[in-house]
Amino acid sequence: MLNAVGREIPEEILERTGKEVFQGNNYKDGKAFQKASPKVTPVMRNDHDKMVKDIHEALVKCNAHDGMTVSFHHHFREGDLVVCMVMEEIHKMGFKNITLSASSLGKAHDALVPMIEDGTIVNIESSGVRGKIGDAISHGKLKGLATMRSHGGRVRAIETGETHVDIAFIGAPSCDEYGNCSGMGGKTNCGVLSYAYVDAEMADYVVAVTDCLVDYPNYPAEINQTKVDYVCVVDQIGIPEKIATGAAKPTTDQRKILMAEYCTQVVANTPYFKDGFSYQTGVGGASIASTISLSKIMEEKNIHMGLGVGGLTKPMCELLDRGLARKLVDTQDFDLDAVNNVRTNPNHFPISAGEYASPMNKGAFVNKLDYVILASLEVDTHFNCNVVVGSDGIITGAQGGHPDTAQGAKCTIVIAPLLQGRIPAICTDVTTVTTPGESVDIVVTDYGVAVNPRRPDLLEALKAADCVPLKTIEELRDIAYSIVGEPEKVQFGDRIVGIIEARDGTVMDVVREVKPFSFRED
Amino acid sequence: MLNAVGREIPEEILERTGKEVFQGNNYKDGKAFQKASPKVTPVMRNDHDKMVKDIHEALVKCNAHDGMTVSFHHHFREGDLVVCMVMEEIHKMGFKNITLSASSLGKAHDALVPMIEDGTIVNIESSGVRGKIGDAISHGKLKGLATMRSHGGRVRAIETGETHVDIAFIGAPSCDEYGNCSGMGGKTNCGVLSYAYVDAEMADYVVAVTDCLVDYPNYPAEINQTKVDYVCVVDQIGIPEKIATGAAKPTTDQRKILMAEYCTQVVANTPYFKDGFSYQTGVGGASIASTISLSKIMEEKNIHMGLGVGGLTKPMCELLDRGLARKLVDTQDFDLDAVNNVRTNPNHFPISAGEYASPMNKGAFVNKLDYVILASLEVDTHFNCNVVVGSDGIITGAQGGHPDTAQGAKCTIVIAPLLQGRIPAICTDVTTVTTPGESVDIVVTDYGVAVNPRRPDLLEALKAADCVPLKTIEELRDIAYSIVGEPEKVQFGDRIVGIIEARDGTVMDVVREVKPFSFRED
Repeated sequence: MLNAVGREIPEEILERTGKEVFQGNNYKDGKAFQKASPKVTPVMRNDHDKMVKDIHEALVKCNAHDGMTVSFHHHFREGDLVVCMVMEEIHKMGFKNITLSASSLGKAHDALVPMIEDGTIVNIESSGVRGKIGDAISHGKLKGLATMRSHGGRVRAIETGETHVDIAFIGAPSCDEYGNCSGMGGKTNCGVLSYAYVDAEMADYVVAVTDCLVDYPNYPAEINQTKVDYVCVVDQIGIPEKIATGAAKPTTDQRKILMAEYCTQVVANTPYFKDGFSYQTGVGGASIASTISLSKIMEEKNIHMGLGVGGLTKPMCELLDRGLARKLVDTQDFDLDAVNNVRTNPNHFPISAGEYASPMNKGAFVNKLDYVILASLEVDTHFNCNVVVGSDGIITGAQGGHPDTAQGAKCTIVIAPLLQGRIPAICTDVTTVTTPGESVDIVVTDYGVAVNPRRPDLLEALKAADCVPLKTIEELRDIAYSIVGEPEKVQFGDRIVGIIEARDGTVMDVVREVKPFSFRED
Repeated sequence: MLNAVGREIPEEILERTGKEVFQGNNYKDGKAFQKASPKVTPVMRNDHDKMVKDIHEALVKCNAHDGMTVSFHHHFREGDLVVCMVMEEIHKMGFKNITLSASSLGKAHDALVPMIEDGTIVNIESSGVRGKIGDAISHGKLKGLATMRSHGGRVRAIETGETHVDIAFIGAPSCDEYGNCSGMGGKTNCGVLSYAYVDAEMADYVVAVTDCLVDYPNYPAEINQTKVDYVCVVDQIGIPEKIATGAAKPTTDQRKILMAEYCTQVVANTPYFKDGFSYQTGVGGASIASTISLSKIMEEKNIHMGLGVGGLTKPMCELLDRGLARKLVDTQDFDLDAVNNVRTNPNHFPISAGEYASPMNKGAFVNKLDYVILASLEVDTHFNCNVVVGSDGIITGAQGGHPDTAQGAKCTIVIAPLLQGRIPAICTDVTTVTTPGESVDIVVTDYGVAVNPRRPDLLEALKAADCVPLKTIEELRDIAYSIVGEPEKVQFGDRIVGIIEARDGTVMDVVREVKPFSFRED
């Protein structure tokens, strides 16, 4: 069945998952639903002890069983030790058919591949799956399905009950014996615990895993005692130097500097750029360079950012510290400056992933964005983006907040260098659709800027300002193809190994098993 | 059927409510339940408008209907204007059979009596019902039932689904157009919005009612945009000078000063008084005097309070500001100093009523109290307390956090002057049981201090310290009766007008219609 971005979604997968095909961004807007709920085991006695001696005891007390769903957050990114620690114990205890629901998975979790191969883990739900796990899934090793969700989509899946978490494990940089968890205050600080809030709220059992037990009460607590069943102290929950991977260095790449300049001009010359504007940017070199150059224009014009949203980095925190931004709301900290800014600046607020991006609550922060600046592996002539599947067909990226912010923001700017090596980033059809073109307003490349024809207002503004070289998206694609030729399409096998879920739970696209490239016989 | 505090609970009321009789404090400890959930209407469009022009429009948009349950918080106390404003519109629109679920009701709501009489309001759920409403209920004017719950019990009732709120109205001292609510930042500040958190979480529709619309985003928000459907700006939500009713004046009442001194000695000479202890006290003159005198001992002995819980007043905030207390968690501010301290001291944390006191989450703050100091209208020789029904049989008080903190604290101290005028506060059987004797450890009167025989450890400690005149509870009662005689029992009619719900939802006692006193014929 064709969906609203023109992808054929096989009936087989719709039947198997009970899902509908994607029918446009606002299909479920205003359609009330009954929220799901967890089983809660109340603690009334004042001498109740939540401490367990190890992960094994936690699993036993939480009634671990075959077929359960366990969940994790990804705030420790490449430095995460919690997922593997818990999964190894689950493996050792011999549980099978586990659904692993993580807010994201990456190279820190390569050790899970054998557990995928032996049927310990049969389904994976994640924003994306970088590293060896992505490779394993794309080669058909996962017995069930990989479901790739945006950060907001994950909250939606859990809150609607599509995903029911049996046990949530929450790596907590600091925690007390009653379960008050914070992203700060320990030896493995990650800033905030935003992605884990929904797990704490909705899982039947919640285990806080910490390497820094502090005095009661560990307030401010991001996840508090009323949500946590057990507390487990371990040696180490993360590798600090691998947590802050996004450390912003000024880019020296001329293409990135050029794109950053185009991007800055686009922001500065569109109608939402006025005092109090709201803004989000990613961690790519061009995005960060653009934030820095935008700040100069803000100062010149005395325009203050009312709200910065993120995924935060040092340049955004500097805007706050310098008074150029009034408030930051934070779901993730990509560098150590951003981590520390959580505690040092009182206008830097941790928020939940739901507050940030869920499409199914009463209004997330993404809905209030004026600008978001995003990167993309591929953008096609329908303005559809692909941020998950590499042009070799292997799952290699993550949806993150891409579809959430792209839909929410009044002006969504996608940055992509026209060519990624010999691969055109601007193409006729993306390998896999992860963000629908409906959400994307402007594409910035090093060869020029294209405006989505749905937004003649933005095109007019940029024409009037004469600030960037304007092209159509087809012109950009043609330039790319004229340099490197039109690429052969990736050849996939028949088996569906994963689905790209739209924010609202419908199917945006499917991901099939890769097969070795074979030349056409014609 | 007799319950665990020896009260006869008629089968009629158990059948009507589906409830069990009270079976002891920890009856439901560890018994898992499925949490209830609201209907959620998602907002995905980035141009969605939550503003409504008046309460009428809010009611229409929230699908107001006969038989619905509407809810309110009581943070504006005697100065509340929101309940009457909304109920008058409901009355005007002609809706009937309304269940009014408020965290508390008082004299500010006397205007609701005609709506009780004409069947607009048929059931009331509240911590208590002071003023004319209490009088109306006790005289049988409410067609349905009045259910009196503790603050924690209310959260439990809503979270278990026993109470399903159709529309929650949240008076917000400041709010933005997307529904971010704060107890501060406006012209009618009440400090915190703790009692409303559960309503915002669990009601199908949530309306923020404010008299101070501020710029987006109104962060820190206690109740955020993801929970709020509509925002309504009105002229005035409360009368500031009536909000801060608990302004602490040093008491000059010699009986209170004596009881405060006994209370201080009890705290200072029991084993939980050590560095890091946790403490809650009420707003009565003796409680406040005791906090002040305790602070002198804390300074002398270099003992710091680790955690203060409340219901806060100036003396508690002073402990925090002076560094004698390390952290305060706050559900309600009784005076202007406490209101302002929310924003001025970073270790003063707003918490939800659930975090404070719910018996059915994974561990509330009350469970971690070392000491709580409470007042009571009556205490009986079984240590049962009555804080709701006057000795004339009229509903006149509120459970508040009394049963919650009393169960939770390791040392629960109840202060009561032996005689309230000509009425003995220490008696053989309280008029109505609201807090079970199982929860009460020590009773302080102006004639001496009695220790619950369940706590020989505390009795030994106080005997060893020789710091207060120790009596048995029967001795205290006998002294009272020897002065004023044994009082005639209040004579009630047959009709049950209300129930005193235990924290866990079982029935602690019933309240019957009062009838004119008639002399015994024997």
